[in-house]
Amino acid sequence: MAGRGIPDSVPPIINESIKMLRNGRWQIMAEPIHNDRPMAGVGLASSFAASWHADHIGEEIGLIPCADGGTSLNDWQVGGALFDHAIFQAKLAQRSSQLTGILWHQGENDSSAELAAKYGEKFDSIVNELRKQLGAPEVPMIIGAIGDFLPYGLFGAHFNDYHLVNSALQKYAASHNNCNFVSAKGLTANEDQIHFNASSLRKFGLRYYQAFLNAADVTEALPDEDELLGKIYGRELSPNERKFILDINFASGKISLSEFQHQLKLIDK
Amino acid sequence: MAGRGIPDSVPPIINESIKMLRNGRWQIMAEPIHNDRPMAGVGLASSFAASWHADHIGEEIGLIPCADGGTSLNDWQVGGALFDHAIFQAKLAQRSSQLTGILWHQGENDSSAELAAKYGEKFDSIVNELRKQLGAPEVPMIIGAIGDFLPYGLFGAHFNDYHLVNSALQKYAASHNNCNFVSAKGLTANEDQIHFNASSLRKFGLRYYQAFLNAADVTEALPDEDELLGKIYGRELSPNERKFILDINFASGKISLSEFQHQLKLIDK
Repeated sequence: MAGRGIPDSVPPIINESIKMLRNGRWQIMAEPIHNDRPMAGVGLASSFAASWHADHIGEEIGLIPCADGGTSLNDWQVGGALFDHAIFQAKLAQRSSQLTGILWHQGENDSSAELAAKYGEKFDSIVNELRKQLGAPEVPMIIGAIGDFLPYGLFGAHFNDYHLVNSALQKYAASHNNCNFVSAKGLTANEDQIHFNASSLRKFGLRYYQAFLNAADVTEALPDEDELLGKIYGRELSPNERKFILDINFASGKISLSEFQHQLKLIDK
Repeated sequence: MAGRGIPDSVPPIINESIKMLRNGRWQIMAEPIHNDRPMAGVGLASSFAASWHADHIGEEIGLIPCADGGTSLNDWQVGGALFDHAIFQAKLAQRSSQLTGILWHQGENDSSAELAAKYGEKFDSIVNELRKQLGAPEVPMIIGAIGDFLPYGLFGAHFNDYHLVNSALQKYAASHNNCNFVSAKGLTANEDQIHFNASSLRKFGLRYYQAFLNAADVTEALPDEDELLGKIYGRELSPNERKFILDINFASGKISLSEFQHQLKLIDK
């Protein structure tokens, strides 16, 4: 999942210990992490990383964006552009980091009965080859459900059999080591009823982290999702992080040079 | 150059015959083409492509973004992350297209007398290896000057010797086949006096295309830059292009579902 949460509909997550891969190098994370399409927005990786960081103060985490919106498993076939691109990104990242997790969320466009019937088999072969090429046979992989809202929105009929994909994902996780499944229960969508909305994606990321932390499926909403997000949003920003935001605002033309210099002095004081 | 032109300060360029590489596949171009940093904005590639397209109706052009803001030639050393990333992107693109040009704009952070003295030699060896690894010994390469405003802005002292980089670029173009140099005369900057502004980048792209078209240096502003841009901005959008913009506006939360559906009907009528 690249993420189509509307950016300004949730508080931002800025944390200098959370990086994203850009041109093979690590940069401080800012959303959109993916840039697969012009409408890329909030995804689930940011709150996953923030949640991870709260348990690993003093350490750094890096995100390797590889997702491409609207793609089916056929688009992800071994040796295709998406697959090879993802492998290359991860290998570039491995030059300066250790691969410690794989977050997978995909399947809306495999929701027909015909495609869903082959989901498990295709997914197995893609993941096997991914793990092989990355030398990562035991790295934890977290996979999550596609949304229960899918049949009720734009192109709803296209998604009538979405639950077959969820069954396939759940079955895969149950029958493979180092893989856990995350429920999307209660999560809601943008007005299109296709894409998870930003506040649901924040919660989804927390659930992905719980599955990662405990190496166990997450079958329900967490009892304290709002509280956990409140802590993430309420975290005090470091001077570096305040400068990072200031740089973006100035370079994007949102504040003037004099305002930029004024704010910079306040941070450095 | 990734491009830091303020996005909404110039009219957009939307053209379904102009693509950009995303995850190894071609998508309709929308700016920012680069996403190296959160402040990525307008660059020079969009108007280059639009200018190319006006001369090649019925054909398609694809852009392969590889730039990374603020980098020096040392960051681009052969075998480094940026270099290898660029090679891989271009190779992915070559699976479904033909490489027909290389646009280079870089050098601000090589502007010290010490670094500038070695610019020509380093650049030569990077370009040689780039051409070799891509099997592209004769593909035209267009290189452009860094801005005359550099010594007068934020960190101006850092850029005092910027003209040495321009001399090195000009000398390289003069002494190598399949390479031409483009002047930045008259182009202006954002308030930081470091980054070209969006309207200048639109003009710069036109100059790059002129150099590409004629396989000749462009040493002055073109006489008709405003007129050429007026034609690009005034081009009538196809139904596909209008849908593309509509999709972005809806998915970004800028218009409601009912407005989206209403507009869609108008396009399909």
